[in-house]
This record gives sequence, C-alpha cells and structure tokens, in this order.
Amino acid sequence: MARTGLDGVVVVQSADLFYFTGTLQAGTLYVPAEGAPLYMVRKDARRARQESALEHIVPLAGMRDMPGLLQEHGHPLPRRLGFELDVLPVAFYERYRKTFPGAQAVDASDLIRRVRMFKSDWELAQLRESARQADAVYRRAREVIREGMTDIELAAELEHTARLSGHPGLIRMRSFNGEMLYAHICSGPDSALPAYLDTPLGGAGPHPSFGQGAGWHRIGAHEPIIVDNAGWAEGYWTDQTRVFSIGELPNHLALAYQDMVRVQELMRELAAPGTNCAELYEQCLGLAHELGYAAQFMGIAGAQVSFIGHGLGVEIDEYPLIGRGGKAFELAVGMAFAFEPKAVFAGQGAVGIENTFYVGAQGLEQITFSDEPVVILD
Amino acid sequence: MARTGLDGVVVVQSADLFYFTGTLQAGTLYVPAEGAPLYMVRKDARRARQESALEHIVPLAGMRDMPGLLQEHGHPLPRRLGFELDVLPVAFYERYRKTFPGAQAVDASDLIRRVRMFKSDWELAQLRESARQADAVYRRAREVIREGMTDIELAAELEHTARLSGHPGLIRMRSFNGEMLYAHICSGPDSALPAYLDTPLGGAGPHPSFGQGAGWHRIGAHEPIIVDNAGWAEGYWTDQTRVFSIGELPNHLALAYQDMVRVQELMRELAAPGTNCAELYEQCLGLAHELGYAAQFMGIAGAQVSFIGHGLGVEIDEYPLIGRGGKAFELAVGMAFAFEPKAVFAGQGAVGIENTFYVGAQGLEQITFSDEPVVILD
Repeated sequence: MARTGLDGVVVVQSADLFYFTGTLQAGTLYVPAEGAPLYMVRKDARRARQESALEHIVPLAGMRDMPGLLQEHGHPLPRRLGFELDVLPVAFYERYRKTFPGAQAVDASDLIRRVRMFKSDWELAQLRESARQADAVYRRAREVIREGMTDIELAAELEHTARLSGHPGLIRMRSFNGEMLYAHICSGPDSALPAYLDTPLGGAGPHPSFGQGAGWHRIGAHEPIIVDNAGWAEGYWTDQTRVFSIGELPNHLALAYQDMVRVQELMRELAAPGTNCAELYEQCLGLAHELGYAAQFMGIAGAQVSFIGHGLGVEIDEYPLIGRGGKAFELAVGMAFAFEPKAVFAGQGAVGIENTFYVGAQGLEQITFSDEPVVILD
Repeated sequence: MARTGLDGVVVVQSADLFYFTGTLQAGTLYVPAEGAPLYMVRKDARRARQESALEHIVPLAGMRDMPGLLQEHGHPLPRRLGFELDVLPVAFYERYRKTFPGAQAVDASDLIRRVRMFKSDWELAQLRESARQADAVYRRAREVIREGMTDIELAAELEHTARLSGHPGLIRMRSFNGEMLYAHICSGPDSALPAYLDTPLGGAGPHPSFGQGAGWHRIGAHEPIIVDNAGWAEGYWTDQTRVFSIGELPNHLALAYQDMVRVQELMRELAAPGTNCAELYEQCLGLAHELGYAAQFMGIAGAQVSFIGHGLGVEIDEYPLIGRGGKAFELAVGMAFAFEPKAVFAGQGAVGIENTFYVGAQGLEQITFSDEPVVILD
C-alpha cells in the first residue's frame, strides 16, 4: 500500500470482507497504510465482534459517520483512497466519493487480489480439507449415477451430499454476473453447450434464465458425464473435474481424455516458482493444438475461453490467471491454482480433467486427489 | 426513455438481460429510444438466437466493436446513454465510457426497475407456478422435520425437493453483496441471529464466511422453525414464510405469530391501487408497535430492517419497496410484492408470515397459498 502511495483502502465486497475480517457483516472495513484496520459495521456489529479477531469494530449508523469514526480512531482523512473498483457498483462508489470529498480515488482491486494470491498455512489447510469434502462428492457420484436419470437429478443428489458437509451452495465468483453453484454436472451433448460464464464448460441449465450447469438431459450409456465440482471448507474453494461413463466411452473421447491428462502432465513439468503464467498457458495450448484439439480445446469453436487455469481461495476466480492475459503473473511459493484442460465436442460432450495445485517450497503439490481415470460404471 | 431524454440504454446485468431478451448470454443489449434493440453477444450468440425472440442478435468480438455494430444497425451513436449504475462495477463502466466517448452517461437503473415493476399476464402465470413449486417444498417440510435434526439437514432435504423441480438454487438479488439460496431455514435461537443481508431474518449459516440461513442448530421441541422460501418458475421468484413447531409453541410466540397475521390483514385492508408504499409501511409498523413489538418487529433491537415488503419477479428485491424509503411508490395494477411481517425474539427465535401478492384490477390477489397457521408436528 505504501508503494502505491495509498493512505487507506475501503473494503466492502463479501469475499474481501471475509478474507480481511474473518466474518462477513454489512459495513465497511477501512485498512489504513499505517495502524490497525477499523471495521465500521451496519449489520451486525455484535456478531462481527464475536466472529472477528479484529480489535477495532464499531457500529455504523450511516455512511456520513465514516470520516468521524476514522478520526476518532486516530486515522487522518485519506488523501489517496483505494477502492475495489472491479466489483464496486458505480452508484455505491459515488456515495463513498461524497463521503470522502477530499480523497483521490484509486483502484485497489489489483492490490487486494495480489495480497489474497498468497496462501498462508492456515489457508492451505482449508484447501486440503476442501479437497476431502469434494472427494466425498465424487465417491457419492459412483453410487448414484444410473442410466436414464436427468443431470438435474444427479446434481440434486450430489448437492445434497455437499450441503450436509456445510457447503453453502453458492460459489463466490468475482467476475460481474458471476453466478455458480456447487458444480457443473452435464452429460452428453449438454456438456458441450456453451453458456454465459467465462468457463470452458457451459451446460443447458434448468431454463434459459439460468442457462448453465445441469439440465434435463437424461444420462445415456457411452457418453461422458462431466462433474466440475467446487469443494468447500471454511469459506475456501477447491476446483476439481472428473469424467464418468456408463460403459466405455467412444474411442476418440477416451483418447481426448488421455490427451488432456497429457496437457496436465506438461503443466506439472513446467510449473515452478518463476514460471510466467502466459508462457505456461501458451505451451500447454500448443500441446493441445499439436495433439489435434485446436477446434475443441477449452470450448467448442467460437466459444473457447483463453485460459486453462485460475487461482482460487475465497473466490473461485482469483489470481493468478494461467491464460492469454496472464503475462503479469509468475508462479511463486504460496500460490494456489486450478488447472483444467478440457476438450469439448459439439453435439457429443466434454471430457477433461481439473485439479487444484499449491506451489510449495518443495515443488508443486496436488491438493485435489480423487481417482483420475475416467470412472466406468456398469 | 423519451421522457428522460435518453438515446439508448446499455443492459448488461444478468436479471435485466434475461428480462429483456428471454435468454442470458454474456454481452450487451442496446435498447435504443427508437427502433429495435440490438443484442451484441460475446458468448454465445448461437445460443442467444435459439433462446431469444429478439430479431437483432450479433456476435461481439470486443467492446471496441460496439459503436460500429450500432451504426450498422441504423442507430446513431448515443449522446445521452443510460447504464445500470446501481449494479455496474466502476471498472466495467469506465470501459463503456471509453467505448462511447461522446456520450453523456446517465443512471438508467430506476427506469429499468420501474419497467420491470409491472408484470404481464405471462409473468403473473409464472408467479402462480412459482407459488405451486414453493408449496411442494412446504408440504415436504411436514414430512421431514424431526427433533434433533440440524437446520442444515432440513435445508438439504427441502433444497433437494426444490432442485428436482428445476430451481437453480441461487436466488437473484440486485443489492450489492446480495447472496441468497433457496430459503432461510432456521430454528430456535438461530432464527434470531442477525446477519449481513438487509432482511429481517438472518441465521447462523454453516460458517462465518457464509453467516446466513441454516446452521448447525439441532431442532428442538416447542421452538419455532421458520422457513422463508423462494419459489421458482421459469426465472421468476415468489417469496413465502411459514412457521413449524414440534409440539406447541410457547404462548408468547404463538401470540406473536397471530399478531403478525393481524399486520398482514391490515395490509390487505389498506393495499389498493393508489396506496403510497411508505404510508402503508408506517401504518403496519404502527400496528406492530401498538401490539407491543417495537423491540422485535422485523429484527432484534439494533438489527431491525426498515421495510415490511418488497417487489419481486426475476429478482427477489424489486420495486416497489414497502418501507421507510418507499415514498416514491404507489401501488398500481400489475405490481407484485411480498409482504413479510416478522417478530424476532433474541435468544428464542423468529415467527411471522410472508406471502406474495399481485395488485389486480379486481383487487389484491394472494399468489402464495400454503396453509397459513403454524404447523404443529408430533
């Protein structure tokens, strides 16, 4: 913060508030360049005090009280004030501008996201627990998948399993219009339907108002059933994808799955502290093209996404980006990311693999651990 | 739009896109003051054409192509351009500003929300269907509630039921940080815990990272189990609350429930085309205070919300607001709203009722219809 010349940062978005306070109450966290943060809470300050380890938590009646509260706690009024401009709505931002008329507003979202990019040991423990939670979902999938059930029926079963372990249902996503729940579970042609999210998988969804994830397709034999599931533990998400099939997959899809595993292996060889994330992307993309998937890799032609991996933690779309736009990121010890090479065949389905990794001092650690081969069911 | 002098409005938020296009694809809908709307779709234009009845749908490679696409379709470049400033993040907005440097930006969110406030016959049909979907959840609750189960176990069962009927899980909420799923299902003291949402009920949730709704409290006899559930049909939400109890409730809570029903009855008497929503709120609040609930009505003391009702449709928090800030709204034929008088007793629990209503030409129509008395289970 000092390097960017900021006097303080206003934090107000859900995931950021939880990250910096350990609770999530409606209000504004002021993080000064010097001194202790001040959490001004509209609803509910008592609960914030119970759940957060922060020392300075005060009730907030209205935004106009903020400058006074800052001064009471020894903070000079900020002259350069950071905001989460990537997520803060314009109308809300304008109210802050009026509250701090003397402050120059600066975009602090990159700063916040770079702080969050490095995971502590405690966070790493949550990711590991999150992977265990996810594995239970995959083991349950082996038990419940049967021919003729709809993707929504399968999703309902697996979501039930996840819910009982405390999964809140929703997956926090930073992107505008980012809506995700539990998992994308799609079979056959539905898994090749592109949707509005910036993800390689789409899905029909239950209705055009929510055209993503599981829809009404009935699972048939010999078609890929792809389960792209977010594990959860104490607010932390992991990301994992596995493929199931009732009976063997057609040869070209089974081969494509193996080839996606090869892309994952290449990533393992290349990923180390210092690896540039755009270069890592280009090399893995290059292998996918060499293997013959130029028209299927990371989406059907016309709907391909330009990344293969993404950071994750309290949101599913954190830094670093392992993609075309990832030039500004080099892997470093402490980062966690999901890597998800996928091949999508229009009218047939999607295959691929995804795991969550941690960049450790001893090398790359794979966090998610469910059995990797395509699960062939009777 | 003509009245506000706008040349066009940029629509980009999920619920608005679905409302105006019938699909939800990533991109920008341009609604001109004159002529037909143009949907510029980044992902996926083919799917948009299949799902939407709009005539003009074109692929969009990048934002810089927008001015050219507008002109190709006969639209002059806008001089006054409306945006959804209540939801559009600052950074995204700045990119639009650079895309249309000659345009004066205007907040069009109030305009959009006022258009959406009036429901068509088709929308009314969806609300009725949504109420049927919700009723199935309440009927299921009678079957599955048992002493000693956690609120999360109960939620998992009811969410499973809802999911099988196509409920997407997530409830669309316009407010910043608005996160809601299916229902708030809380029993005993947990239903009196205030949370970060601007709602009368809060709940412990599974963890401080998601401190709302069902938590780990085990349902006991003689304590209120409150189920505040959003029904779903084809993208449309209704809102309904009912109370269950294993054995009778303590007298003061049973009485409070009856008194909340009395507040609902007063609303029924007063609500008609022309009724001002702030005045309606004040009268109902006045009755709740007269009945002795000044410290319990719409939340525990210090966490009370300043509304009793809210419009709903493709979002759960639409216009009109029946609350302190509702002065600008008068009820009119075509509006739909939820009304939710609730009394919350710290350390004990919450009771109350909620129904969804439609203002029809023949009077107020109640859309949600599950049995209203407290459901006493063995």
